[in-house]
Amino acid sequence: MTTPISIVTLGVENLERSRAFYEQGLGWSATPDSSDEIVFFDLPGAKLALYAYDDLAEETGLPSTRGLGFGGITLAQNYRTKAEVDQMMETARAAGALILTPPVDRHWGGYSGYFADPDGYPWEIAWGPSFVYNDDGTLRLTE
Amino acid sequence: MTTPISIVTLGVENLERSRAFYEQGLGWSATPDSSDEIVFFDLPGAKLALYAYDDLAEETGLPSTRGLGFGGITLAQNYRTKAEVDQMMETARAAGALILTPPVDRHWGGYSGYFADPDGYPWEIAWGPSFVYNDDGTLRLTE
Repeated sequence: MTTPISIVTLGVENLERSRAFYEQGLGWSATPDSSDEIVFFDLPGAKLALYAYDDLAEETGLPSTRGLGFGGITLAQNYRTKAEVDQMMETARAAGALILTPPVDRHWGGYSGYFADPDGYPWEIAWGPSFVYNDDGTLRLTE
Repeated sequence: MTTPISIVTLGVENLERSRAFYEQGLGWSATPDSSDEIVFFDLPGAKLALYAYDDLAEETGLPSTRGLGFGGITLAQNYRTKAEVDQMMETARAAGALILTPPVDRHWGGYSGYFADPDGYPWEIAWGPSFVYNDDGTLRLTE
């Protein structure tokens, strides 16, 4: 079995602002050991972490491209119905997210939209006709 | 329960090159329905997908920053021992990955290094003294 992606860390400009977006805006729960240095959200499967952009860039040793546009990675959440996709996009909009693309039918047969979090990280909110889920909501790609 | 991150998609310059890196280089298995348009790796929890950078940027509607540096997101794999971290970093190096930081002791008590995949996406390979795992290797952050 391949080792999972255990944590996806977003480098953020303002930790409080981003924490409030995910916590109050989207309704996710930060873990009790979250601090003013790092915030964890205990999602099933890969965890989400928030950490200061400059510190994260320094840790990787790569030059900053903050604020310049698409960083090359999208994060997807898959839902069981088109209506749930619409609802999640509306929750994000109400939380102050920029709607990059309202949900539309996709050429691969699915239905998805994109919103950007406070730092511009793109989340795809998707439904697909052939997606199969485990009990914890994670995808089952193969049997 | 919060909806998981179902898929992490990397926008890549050369799909064949990236597929070969993860498949032959790191030894991960692409799913049978992977194509010359999109490649999926069926990791426990969040799946990894590879997709053409320009198409992914267009889908998000965000301007390209390809090749400019750190896109703001790191992906972590957590291992059970320091020796496994060293071994995985060596596997990545042998696969042609750029070693951004060799594994070092971190101020939070862990031990980790970073490598960059063929498009420069930074993977943190980490061990931590307090990490607890589920049977499928995903992290257990809270009880």
